[in-house]
Amino acid sequence: MRQSQYFLKTSKNTPSDDVSINATLLEQGGFVYKNSAGIYSYLPLGWRVVQKIAHIIREEMDGIGGQEMFMPALHDKHYLKATGRWDVDVVFKVNSGDQKEPQFNISWTHEEIMSEIAARYVSSYRDLPFATYQIQTKFRNEARAKSGLLRGREFMMKDLYSFHRDEEDLNRYYEIVRDAYFKIFKRCDLEALYTLAAGGDFTSNYTHEFQVVCPVGEDTIFVCEKCDYAENKEISKLKKGNPCPKCGGVVYEKKSIEVGNIFRYGTKYSEPFNLQFTDEKGQRKFVQSGAYGIGLGRVMGTVVEVSHDSNGIIWPQSLAPFSVHLVSLEPTSPGVHSEAEGLYSSLQRRGIEVLYDDRDLSAGSKFTDSDLIGIPWRLLVSPKTRKAGKLEVKNRKTGKIELVPADLETVSKLIR
Amino acid sequence: MRQSQYFLKTSKNTPSDDVSINATLLEQGGFVYKNSAGIYSYLPLGWRVVQKIAHIIREEMDGIGGQEMFMPALHDKHYLKATGRWDVDVVFKVNSGDQKEPQFNISWTHEEIMSEIAARYVSSYRDLPFATYQIQTKFRNEARAKSGLLRGREFMMKDLYSFHRDEEDLNRYYEIVRDAYFKIFKRCDLEALYTLAAGGDFTSNYTHEFQVVCPVGEDTIFVCEKCDYAENKEISKLKKGNPCPKCGGVVYEKKSIEVGNIFRYGTKYSEPFNLQFTDEKGQRKFVQSGAYGIGLGRVMGTVVEVSHDSNGIIWPQSLAPFSVHLVSLEPTSPGVHSEAEGLYSSLQRRGIEVLYDDRDLSAGSKFTDSDLIGIPWRLLVSPKTRKAGKLEVKNRKTGKIELVPADLETVSKLIR
Repeated sequence: MRQSQYFLKTSKNTPSDDVSINATLLEQGGFVYKNSAGIYSYLPLGWRVVQKIAHIIREEMDGIGGQEMFMPALHDKHYLKATGRWDVDVVFKVNSGDQKEPQFNISWTHEEIMSEIAARYVSSYRDLPFATYQIQTKFRNEARAKSGLLRGREFMMKDLYSFHRDEEDLNRYYEIVRDAYFKIFKRCDLEALYTLAAGGDFTSNYTHEFQVVCPVGEDTIFVCEKCDYAENKEISKLKKGNPCPKCGGVVYEKKSIEVGNIFRYGTKYSEPFNLQFTDEKGQRKFVQSGAYGIGLGRVMGTVVEVSHDSNGIIWPQSLAPFSVHLVSLEPTSPGVHSEAEGLYSSLQRRGIEVLYDDRDLSAGSKFTDSDLIGIPWRLLVSPKTRKAGKLEVKNRKTGKIELVPADLETVSKLIR
Repeated sequence: MRQSQYFLKTSKNTPSDDVSINATLLEQGGFVYKNSAGIYSYLPLGWRVVQKIAHIIREEMDGIGGQEMFMPALHDKHYLKATGRWDVDVVFKVNSGDQKEPQFNISWTHEEIMSEIAARYVSSYRDLPFATYQIQTKFRNEARAKSGLLRGREFMMKDLYSFHRDEEDLNRYYEIVRDAYFKIFKRCDLEALYTLAAGGDFTSNYTHEFQVVCPVGEDTIFVCEKCDYAENKEISKLKKGNPCPKCGGVVYEKKSIEVGNIFRYGTKYSEPFNLQFTDEKGQRKFVQSGAYGIGLGRVMGTVVEVSHDSNGIIWPQSLAPFSVHLVSLEPTSPGVHSEAEGLYSSLQRRGIEVLYDDRDLSAGSKFTDSDLIGIPWRLLVSPKTRKAGKLEVKNRKTGKIELVPADLETVSKLIR
């Protein structure tokens, strides 16, 4: 993509009422535009990052038998009324025409819808187990939506739902999802701790959260210094006991960001929607279900919080909007333009995603923009590199700059 | 995908309050689930069709320089207030907490949001032209939402927006989009007529709609018998004159479904959001804009309306959820199971999308389901085909059934 034609402009402004690092860097870098508190547009550059996250999530969900579908955002009130959640205070209500009472809410969550659908199609033990997921928007009327993408009033979520004949099978799948989640966060370059937690408005069972240690996190967790044991401070209060990792290690209190969670519901959502099946003996039983969430925007915001420096974002290769930022300096200088153009075409032909800064600006502005946007590799073509018959390569993460032979093989190897 | 493990069940029930062919066949075939009037869930089978449509649209939008982004669904009221559209009667309003007056609406359209964003980033003629698009949900409180996917209260739409320095450049791009739209509908196997139309709540300029002739359509158009001229009856009324194709041919009145539209706004949305640029002479001017929509669900519903028979849907290859429906009969009969399993693996290895009916059901139910779902090719493995050393292939569209050599080369060639 040629930067001169891309709908991308960086900015030096700091967002007025949101001082979080992710909001600041993502707005300054031209990734997002804030429409209202906690409500963002993803600009083309930011949308590429979301699509990378979505792609990783889809691969791992498909890998554990998840079947993608798509549920609506406008929910008739019978759904939340059935589970007594219509009056949860973060639910946005929608008025329909002349009626005085709201008839709909916008998707706070989708357990009710998914359970009603499953009830139509599940009749026998032969129909179980199965798992469905979607990437769809959730709306929550959060009072404090001032942490950029970490706490939105509108946000994109992957929610997986699984349905089972008994608790044992639910527990088996719960662990499969746990392992898939570890893979997802690893691929997003996030170190997520599997953390024992409470279920809030969703379930009275213990649940697990995937928490990334970060000073701006809204959660507080206890983490063991020796083993990988972690638990949410909330649940330590409920348990009325201190966290006690099996290894006997000392626990530390840390701030953290919840990037995912997994819930075992048992029959909580099956009962109100009469989601039953007939077992081998002809007996009717309620289906056991679980739900498993990941916030895509929150993953994006968390990556920015844990991976940046004073010059801007440092994207991991897996989520970077482009793999390479090709920058030309003094494009009117002899040979620079044609070498940069040639390199741009060759990289594209190889299927390497390249953002090409072909603008006629000073070296200073181009380097500043490049560091702010945070693409892992910067390739420079300038009168100086031309003279040396080389290319200059900068690694955004290490800051290391080196001259390399100006051939595509070398470049390809370096950036993979 | 093994049908025994797929979240897919066909049904013989007719939807209670919706007799449209698309609603009936898509619900019976297990493609969609109706949550409320005009509000649908896409089940895994139906979601695959939506993704095929989305893929075609993305390719063609990217091909004309469209940059994908994603805008929110929850809009602060300042957006529609700025253009005087807050009180359009199909706009769903959202209450936020204790406030008596609704603070938000859910996305009826996105011109206002896109114009405000563009105003932040456009300053010079050098920033123009550009075009952005998204695939996002729209909500419209339609009184009569009884035509399945043809008229939803919640529906998925691709909306492209383009921004230009003058009318001439807008007109140039308008024709580029027109040509891309012809490609899209052709790839979806729809014969769409380029139809002169009015702009409703969107613009007072003439616009163009892409209309597919169909008896259940809600629109009425005049179509020339000789040339490809078409115009919407609405505009014939406004013009107070009869439609007059240049060829002088006779026009016929037909019912049709609008599957896409393209609008030239001029400066209508630039003025309220102060979307200006500085030209080469240093003069400030309002940006000219256009918008171009396609409803994804409506495309899906229209394809079903124009391509079905009494047994079910007939998907074109480009939109079919799977390319091949592999059906095994009497899977316990010697050799049948292993041959079907082998074929299933081989087809998958070749990257051919295959739905494999491995269920132990009667030939009758399996054939009925297969015709209803409407995958273009049905491959049958049965004791009879085994005996003949062949495979049976059925073309869903022509109904032609033939025995072919049981090798993958033959099968691959046939179905491509």
